[in-house]
Amino acid sequence: MRRTNREFIKELKANGLDGLIVSSLANISYLTKVFNSDAYLLVSLKGLTYFTDSRYSEEARIKLKGAANLKNIDGSVFKSIARACLDLGLKKVGFEERHLPYAEYKKIKEYLKARVYLIPTIGILEGMRMVKGPQELAKIRKALKITALAIEFIKDFIRPGVRELEIAAELERFIRYQGAAGSAFNIIVASGVNSAFPHHLPTSRKITDNDIVILDAGVDYLGYKSDLTRVFFLGKINNLARRIYALVRNAQAMAIKKIKPGEKASVIDAASRRYIANYGYGNYFLHSLGHGVGLDIHEAPSISDKSEEILKEGMVFTVEPAVYLPGKFGLRVEDMVLVTKNGCEVLSGLINK
Amino acid sequence: MRRTNREFIKELKANGLDGLIVSSLANISYLTKVFNSDAYLLVSLKGLTYFTDSRYSEEARIKLKGAANLKNIDGSVFKSIARACLDLGLKKVGFEERHLPYAEYKKIKEYLKARVYLIPTIGILEGMRMVKGPQELAKIRKALKITALAIEFIKDFIRPGVRELEIAAELERFIRYQGAAGSAFNIIVASGVNSAFPHHLPTSRKITDNDIVILDAGVDYLGYKSDLTRVFFLGKINNLARRIYALVRNAQAMAIKKIKPGEKASVIDAASRRYIANYGYGNYFLHSLGHGVGLDIHEAPSISDKSEEILKEGMVFTVEPAVYLPGKFGLRVEDMVLVTKNGCEVLSGLINK
Repeated sequence: MRRTNREFIKELKANGLDGLIVSSLANISYLTKVFNSDAYLLVSLKGLTYFTDSRYSEEARIKLKGAANLKNIDGSVFKSIARACLDLGLKKVGFEERHLPYAEYKKIKEYLKARVYLIPTIGILEGMRMVKGPQELAKIRKALKITALAIEFIKDFIRPGVRELEIAAELERFIRYQGAAGSAFNIIVASGVNSAFPHHLPTSRKITDNDIVILDAGVDYLGYKSDLTRVFFLGKINNLARRIYALVRNAQAMAIKKIKPGEKASVIDAASRRYIANYGYGNYFLHSLGHGVGLDIHEAPSISDKSEEILKEGMVFTVEPAVYLPGKFGLRVEDMVLVTKNGCEVLSGLINK
Repeated sequence: MRRTNREFIKELKANGLDGLIVSSLANISYLTKVFNSDAYLLVSLKGLTYFTDSRYSEEARIKLKGAANLKNIDGSVFKSIARACLDLGLKKVGFEERHLPYAEYKKIKEYLKARVYLIPTIGILEGMRMVKGPQELAKIRKALKITALAIEFIKDFIRPGVRELEIAAELERFIRYQGAAGSAFNIIVASGVNSAFPHHLPTSRKITDNDIVILDAGVDYLGYKSDLTRVFFLGKINNLARRIYALVRNAQAMAIKKIKPGEKASVIDAASRRYIANYGYGNYFLHSLGHGVGLDIHEAPSISDKSEEILKEGMVFTVEPAVYLPGKFGLRVEDMVLVTKNGCEVLSGLINK
């Protein structure tokens, strides 16, 4: 906490700000360790002010342990935020332009009455969050451990006659018995032709003989997420599927080999993408190679052809090449890696491969 | 669909607009019947344009059935939205200011190059969504039916020694076997002193003898939600809890009696709030009385002291008075009602009361 806050104050100064209105819930929990579904945080050189309403304020008071000045809002939270900026004598206050709806920006600006500069910012906290600290890593490892147990558990359950929704049901149950707060996102169970849709949500479709089943799942453990995709083949694997599966796994290996501090994220993406394109399936790899995982299931760094990030030790992200053949099937493998001093550790490497 | 779209065009004209950029995912699914976690919709007198990327476009193409012009985005979706506004010759385009981050507003505005007026709007579609049509009601009834079965199922499971998270686990499993896509929100299981926190999330706390357990759960059925709270008493009920429980139930009955078309939402809220205040617990009822339920778990109308809504036939909302005594316990009952021609129907009235 202390280290995080010192770093953050340095970032604020580097951005020419004397305060920041934090509206991303993940960023708020990063700075306060309090998880809440309706809150705002004002950070300045003079300390933290935490805004929430009476549904959450008693719980927040206990969990903040005095780390922030708590404002229990009855009325307009935007008026209260503006009031706090004025009371603290702030002159240049940033806001998170990707996490503040236009309507809320407008209200805060109105209440500030042109006495404070309100300045859009992008990614100040997201930039800090990319490199994980030891406590964060421990939670991510635990989230992955639960995911590994869940995949081991579900293996025998996936069989002809079972519905996609039932597979999701059993996983949702199992992970909570392991202490997870819940799923990190809507579990994807995509069987047969449904596997050709990258983000297919579970339906009442029954698994049939010789189906391909894509399972993409993760859990939330004390706020930190995991994200993993495994493929299950039921019965016979046709030749095309066998070839594509090898292709996708090799494409993943190509990318993983290149991961090390100092490398460009776009180069990692290209390693998989070119490999798949060389075999003629470039147009069927429908998304970027990966994304950071932490307090948010999708966070920085983006591992894509457009990414300008340079890898650093301590970053955690997914590597998930795929090929989707419309009307036929899709195949994706997804693992989570940690950038280490000289390369990377595949955090999910031992899980059911 | 057809009726909805005609009504909507009328609303657009009434707002002096010739187009609207829809960024609320619930509003997009209301107009298109397509559920997607990353999409934008441009609606104008000239038809619908649906923007999504290659992760979703194939699924969207199939489900839209030609109802909208589909743009598969590779690059900036905001540039593409602006381009479509210009191509369609629109002059006054609204956007949903509560559902568009400042950064996205800024980009669209930039790409429009001052050739189109970009006008903030609030609640155009949310206003229409308040009154439910017959197909919507059927889905809400089905969501409640599944919730009723889930509560019946979990009753015997809630006993000393069981953890809050395990109760959530069993519910998450059960509802999917009944065909729900999942929970409508994070299930609240609040036992013992935890029940004093209105939005307490399940922990590994074990239920003990004589605990109060608050269960607040709902499901998502074809996009439509349910929301219900029931209280379970394990063993002896102390006198204070008995008194407060009767108070909260009576407060709910007071509100329900007043529900009919033409009544103010604030009057419904006041009926419960005054009753609770008369018994000296006004400061312990920490939230508004209720909220609309539909494609979103919280939607219009708000049933609160500040609400300016007038009830109309076909509205669906919760009635959930509560008393939270810090360090002791909390008690809340929550039902869903449908405003009928002359009063209301308690949609969840028969569920375990």
